[in-house]
Amino acid sequence: MPQRYSEDEIIARVFAPIAGVGALGLKDDAALLDPVKEPLVLTTDMVVAGVHFFADDPPALIAKKALRVNLSDLAAKGAEPIGFLLSLALPDDWTNSWLEAFAAGLAEDARAFRAPLIGGDTTATPGPLTISITALGRASRFVPRDGARAGDAIYVTGTIGDAALGLAVRRDQALAQRLSPEARDDLIRRYLLPKPRLDLAPWLRANAGAAMDISDGLAGDLAKLARASRTSAIVDLPSVPLSEAARAAIALDAALFETAITGGDDYEILFTAAPAAVPPAGAIRIGEIVAGDAPPLFLDARKKPVNFKKMSFSHF
Amino acid sequence: MPQRYSEDEIIARVFAPIAGVGALGLKDDAALLDPVKEPLVLTTDMVVAGVHFFADDPPALIAKKALRVNLSDLAAKGAEPIGFLLSLALPDDWTNSWLEAFAAGLAEDARAFRAPLIGGDTTATPGPLTISITALGRASRFVPRDGARAGDAIYVTGTIGDAALGLAVRRDQALAQRLSPEARDDLIRRYLLPKPRLDLAPWLRANAGAAMDISDGLAGDLAKLARASRTSAIVDLPSVPLSEAARAAIALDAALFETAITGGDDYEILFTAAPAAVPPAGAIRIGEIVAGDAPPLFLDARKKPVNFKKMSFSHF
Repeated sequence: MPQRYSEDEIIARVFAPIAGVGALGLKDDAALLDPVKEPLVLTTDMVVAGVHFFADDPPALIAKKALRVNLSDLAAKGAEPIGFLLSLALPDDWTNSWLEAFAAGLAEDARAFRAPLIGGDTTATPGPLTISITALGRASRFVPRDGARAGDAIYVTGTIGDAALGLAVRRDQALAQRLSPEARDDLIRRYLLPKPRLDLAPWLRANAGAAMDISDGLAGDLAKLARASRTSAIVDLPSVPLSEAARAAIALDAALFETAITGGDDYEILFTAAPAAVPPAGAIRIGEIVAGDAPPLFLDARKKPVNFKKMSFSHF
Repeated sequence: MPQRYSEDEIIARVFAPIAGVGALGLKDDAALLDPVKEPLVLTTDMVVAGVHFFADDPPALIAKKALRVNLSDLAAKGAEPIGFLLSLALPDDWTNSWLEAFAAGLAEDARAFRAPLIGGDTTATPGPLTISITALGRASRFVPRDGARAGDAIYVTGTIGDAALGLAVRRDQALAQRLSPEARDDLIRRYLLPKPRLDLAPWLRANAGAAMDISDGLAGDLAKLARASRTSAIVDLPSVPLSEAARAAIALDAALFETAITGGDDYEILFTAAPAAVPPAGAIRIGEIVAGDAPPLFLDARKKPVNFKKMSFSHF
């Protein structure tokens, strides 16, 4: 084992150089932020090697995904990022170069999304690499999950299922080999690196009734949104946008359509808006909120209801 | 394995009932807080079974310690808690009753310290129980680590070394058996359940020059405070307050004095104040900040410097 940084060196050499205003150079016990005039939005997500990513994924991508799943929550709530705190439990076999690549990835995204690192904690673990990020944002209006009303249109902000299919491809060699290299790479890339839709936050806080990011699968997440809003929903499945790569995978195995709709890790935003609202560029209308308390109805091209075996991803 | 809660049930049945204002009943993707007029103070700490606590410690105490180490940071900075977010990675063998006891302990402390649960995330892990908490507070003045000036008096807010000795007692059966049951229990209790000094936050923000909580050992933490402040320090070791239980342990093995001074997990506050300042009740003066950049000097009863083998706890 080559010489590794001490705990103090990890802070001073790896994370302090990428820390933002408020972090106090990571030399104090806490971060300090100026008073914020708008309501504060806070979210936290923990990711674990072997559960949310593969331990041997590129460290920069692991860092980016851990941050982006949090920024995705801020985006869905219509919030602008203020900064984030990172807790990192390092497994026995960490190396300086792994840590430096991780921090470089984090720094790139912190800059790109204007979400500076403002604090953190590093510890050892006898278990897998575990990353917990808490992101802080501000929003003049918080877009709730329970704001959908009967008659509202339902939208998603991009193609659905790519990440879940990317995971399927990584787990299933046979499937991977039947796909073109381009399709395979597209799907895997979406699994490795979600895109937080922060560009849509201003539109959402001005226009959306309800919103959430799709982390556990479109079907289950829409069910949660509808239930929170005491409404039901009808989704026109042929309207759900699928990438070419996703279509290619589903053409090979029709059962993968269910994976796409229920698998999760999309980090696109599911939102509702008044039927007359002009949606932002790229958003696709997939259905309508209706009165009632029934679970959402998913209709196929012949307007027949489709039942999914499992509505969404669950850890337990 | 008895039937266990689903992920949705964990949120709805275990954590939602103990959540505070801003948590939105844990039914949304993020917490929402009113604008805060004072500067915000944020801190995060992650604790891992087998590293920071024993996996079979009582779940209520694991929860309380995880929260208290964060509240201790707020206290040291002179901050009043606003709330906290919890990320929880549950190992394969979790049970509903374990989780309920964990949540009950958390709820007790959230109430006692007026630090409501405002958000969180629960995931599975193939590794040990891992808990990350981010605490948010407000402080009209942030007490920095780098505010010590030559001539300032150095104080600690309570007895030092109990928790480190409690850990030593848990690891060393022979030592445990030579101590009285009372002394043994006192030390172990301090290891299991630190006391965040939030009662002193108002005094600290009004009067302290520099402050930090003692998590990695008095010797090393004072060295950090002095270095950050570009000063040195002289500590009169006989002035460092020791509990009766700690004295009993050190009487059995003089080497345990070093454990007490460098072992950490105290969560008392180390602070400096002008020499004329009247310290708060319970604070004990242990030395003086002096000019220079030498490491702090620790003097024994005969005013001879004592060198410690290792100044503080480090994970790496």
